[in-house]
Amino acid sequence: MSAISGTKLEHGGLFFSGVGINMNIIMQLLLARVTFRFSCQVRYFHIQQKKLAVELTRIRYPNLKRGPYANICDADISNFGKLLPGKGRVITDVTELEGYNTDWLKTCRGSSQVVLRPKTTEEVSALLCYCNDRRLAVVPQGGNTGLVGGSVPVFDEVIISTELMNNIISLDEVSGILVCQAGCILANLDSYLKDHNFTMPLDLGAKGSCHIGGNLATNAGGVRLLRYGSLHGSILGLEVVQANGEVIDCLSTLRKDNTGYDLKQLFIGSEGTLGIITKAAILCPQKPNAVYVAFLGCDSFNRVLDVFQKSKHMLGEILSAFEFMDSASMDVIRNNLKMPNPIADFPFYILIETSGSQGGHDEEKLNTFLETMLSSQLVKDGTVATDMSKIEALWSVRERMAEGLMHDGYCYKYDVSLPLMKFYNLVEDMRHHLGNRVTRVVGYGHVGDGNLHLNITTPAYSHEIMDLIEPYVYDWVAHHHGSISAEHGLGFKKKQFIYHSKTKSAVRLMQAIKKVMDPNGILNPYKTIPDAS
Amino acid sequence: MSAISGTKLEHGGLFFSGVGINMNIIMQLLLARVTFRFSCQVRYFHIQQKKLAVELTRIRYPNLKRGPYANICDADISNFGKLLPGKGRVITDVTELEGYNTDWLKTCRGSSQVVLRPKTTEEVSALLCYCNDRRLAVVPQGGNTGLVGGSVPVFDEVIISTELMNNIISLDEVSGILVCQAGCILANLDSYLKDHNFTMPLDLGAKGSCHIGGNLATNAGGVRLLRYGSLHGSILGLEVVQANGEVIDCLSTLRKDNTGYDLKQLFIGSEGTLGIITKAAILCPQKPNAVYVAFLGCDSFNRVLDVFQKSKHMLGEILSAFEFMDSASMDVIRNNLKMPNPIADFPFYILIETSGSQGGHDEEKLNTFLETMLSSQLVKDGTVATDMSKIEALWSVRERMAEGLMHDGYCYKYDVSLPLMKFYNLVEDMRHHLGNRVTRVVGYGHVGDGNLHLNITTPAYSHEIMDLIEPYVYDWVAHHHGSISAEHGLGFKKKQFIYHSKTKSAVRLMQAIKKVMDPNGILNPYKTIPDAS
Repeated sequence: MSAISGTKLEHGGLFFSGVGINMNIIMQLLLARVTFRFSCQVRYFHIQQKKLAVELTRIRYPNLKRGPYANICDADISNFGKLLPGKGRVITDVTELEGYNTDWLKTCRGSSQVVLRPKTTEEVSALLCYCNDRRLAVVPQGGNTGLVGGSVPVFDEVIISTELMNNIISLDEVSGILVCQAGCILANLDSYLKDHNFTMPLDLGAKGSCHIGGNLATNAGGVRLLRYGSLHGSILGLEVVQANGEVIDCLSTLRKDNTGYDLKQLFIGSEGTLGIITKAAILCPQKPNAVYVAFLGCDSFNRVLDVFQKSKHMLGEILSAFEFMDSASMDVIRNNLKMPNPIADFPFYILIETSGSQGGHDEEKLNTFLETMLSSQLVKDGTVATDMSKIEALWSVRERMAEGLMHDGYCYKYDVSLPLMKFYNLVEDMRHHLGNRVTRVVGYGHVGDGNLHLNITTPAYSHEIMDLIEPYVYDWVAHHHGSISAEHGLGFKKKQFIYHSKTKSAVRLMQAIKKVMDPNGILNPYKTIPDAS
Repeated sequence: MSAISGTKLEHGGLFFSGVGINMNIIMQLLLARVTFRFSCQVRYFHIQQKKLAVELTRIRYPNLKRGPYANICDADISNFGKLLPGKGRVITDVTELEGYNTDWLKTCRGSSQVVLRPKTTEEVSALLCYCNDRRLAVVPQGGNTGLVGGSVPVFDEVIISTELMNNIISLDEVSGILVCQAGCILANLDSYLKDHNFTMPLDLGAKGSCHIGGNLATNAGGVRLLRYGSLHGSILGLEVVQANGEVIDCLSTLRKDNTGYDLKQLFIGSEGTLGIITKAAILCPQKPNAVYVAFLGCDSFNRVLDVFQKSKHMLGEILSAFEFMDSASMDVIRNNLKMPNPIADFPFYILIETSGSQGGHDEEKLNTFLETMLSSQLVKDGTVATDMSKIEALWSVRERMAEGLMHDGYCYKYDVSLPLMKFYNLVEDMRHHLGNRVTRVVGYGHVGDGNLHLNITTPAYSHEIMDLIEPYVYDWVAHHHGSISAEHGLGFKKKQFIYHSKTKSAVRLMQAIKKVMDPNGILNPYKTIPDAS
């Protein structure tokens, strides 16, 4: 018997055993979900810390040249101490620095000699003003959960961490508008909001460690984008410190404000290269009264797409996630994480989540939808979870994929947008292209957003394998009019491939904007966009 | 008996008489709604055209100085003719020019000598390249329905109209992603989409005339923002021509694309001062299967807010509009448009719309909500419309307000965002401040978005009244941390008040971006942001 004991789907039968679901229990379990994910994340991080040190980025990429920045000296450290008085605010201990210098995936390692931990916007302003005057390069760092090497130094950049900027400033209980500092952890914000009957408009696997400032700087997507849209729509205001220390206060808490250019939008997704986000005002949706999850099996990827289209029609406004995994992904879950497959084996799996204000109505909609899917043979098997512990268990099959892949050794990670008709072909082509040189090629992701996570693993990093994958994968995506980075950003690892998704004139305009906003180029150098030639 | 014969609310009774609503009829009526609104808009425009010519802007604002632009000459007209071959593409006839020179509200009039009507992006590019080289100032114009004088010339700027750029390019029937040229009329796009089971994510009174390019350039809000969010979230891609004629192709049709800075966001809401939008890719939601409207009466504005908060909880994901009007607004509808009040007289009226995928479920939610509102005395009376002709009739009470106000003579129009607790105080304070010097002071708008439309009318424009209103109204809004333009933009009429809503450092950054993108300042001068000093 499966460890996940959700009601088994039976053709023509009812999927929900009990009609009257106790909402109090659901609320408690929603809270439990936050804790659960949080602990997963932290545990995983510590496992990683025990491994051997990662090769330095400047050694792995020997052609890379350090920019014309000043070298940090003792006087700088002493001055930082004056700007940030108190213990633990200026870190120079080599062992302590290691975690800040190394990315979560263990693919990039810088050699910064100092981490600065401001608590206020004024402190961030003073630090940037100092670094800009001294021509010291800076890397802003949130929870350091990024997947493209954007949040760690490439050489010896000064690290400015938002760890101590973790205050919730206000919540308007009528409108659901939350104002907080950039260093608040996503899961903590969601937990706080749930107590006030709201929820965060974004959710992602790293929620237990990632900072909201980092989410904004990278325009994080995640599993709720299908329902609540992108951060460009949910963020009402930002406070940002520019490279020269000037504070740009666009911290509006208004749903509409058409006065001048919408400057905050520029900072969303610019990966810390235009300014450091210090505060945000976020429009938070109502917490749903009812959440249900269905985990389904399909014979082919075309069936997955058919089910997606039907779900949009039949579930409409209550559809809150539509995720898919292939059978190679399920092998990772089973073999590397020792978790069971919640249903029988299939080539493809779908996870559908509904969230709504009236459980009875949602149950009826989901029931009708699932009956139609089974009777039309689009779905072959499945399970539905109506209580939170089972919902959590089903979600964990999808959310622990990144963790499971790391057990193989090294993971080459690609996060692309593709037209849905071409979506899975990339995985199949890549499998054929790489053959048995790699441990596995897996595909999973957010079908609802056209966002595929392609992952390739090997026992250790190999230049030869990398050369087989890149630029092959980017050429493939560009050829099919996709984006080479759907939600992870370009960071350090993908910067040079920007022309696969953006035109020369667009990149020239980006460079001109960067030059105006950070004339000395001190903010997160070597990242996101190529230097102007 | 009222002309609007929606089912009358009765305390404790059922609001919906029939349970099985015929969805085919609703679909037909949804289409009828588009036609209806379109004809209203066009009719009104022609009424306006018959009035006397409006005072020239350069005369009404005698302190305004023309910028250092070239004067248009015969050789320019001849060259434009070569760039736009064919009949009706270069308009120089004085009578024909009048409509293009004058804004919809009849408050601004320029003296442009030429209107250019390109059909393609390449033609827009060639025109801008020419104008930039010649230092000819340009005003981009869509449907010319703006309310802040942003779409008409101030002096003699060349008008580039998007009227002939009205092709729908593609619609992805799985994802609902529409690609079209900038000159498509909003109502036409919505009508096209409805045939394919989708709908536009925005809706506004001017839909019968306004162009999607203008909607984007002004970041139009409207009545669906509550449900589908702002255009910053719904727009996936833009193609824009910069001042020098360079085409910026960010016309992504992907839901997620995090490669470099999100340049398209800069153009949304920049009112044609940074570039001319030529094409857009828009994420369109599913067409709802069921739409219901309730028109309710309340004793006080605090009750309106209570009903709003309850509606968010009880209607949740199906709530698609929450509008309010005061009794002075109802006087306009009754006296100037000769339309009846759909219910008894009250100090405040609410219009609630629900849209959902399952009519029976929505009906049940709305029914329970309305019973609760009546039994708790938050709502005193009301009517519910379940068929489209009645829904249209109820919406027209709200949507024809702008038209009704114009019958008074001159309308001083303000569109502000305010915290909900202060929302209606502005109307009351203004009424007290102006006394009987004006015909009326009315308040209506989008409670769901914190967006108040404050309107003051007099028989004719008066400098003295204007001086009593401005900057009083902007000081009031700034004091209460609101925005002086929620959705209309700053355009020509409100540009100088930007500092009431934005800081000096933010405006300096806007000016720096403008300088980079339009170094000669030819694009829509005298608008949106103050010139850099």
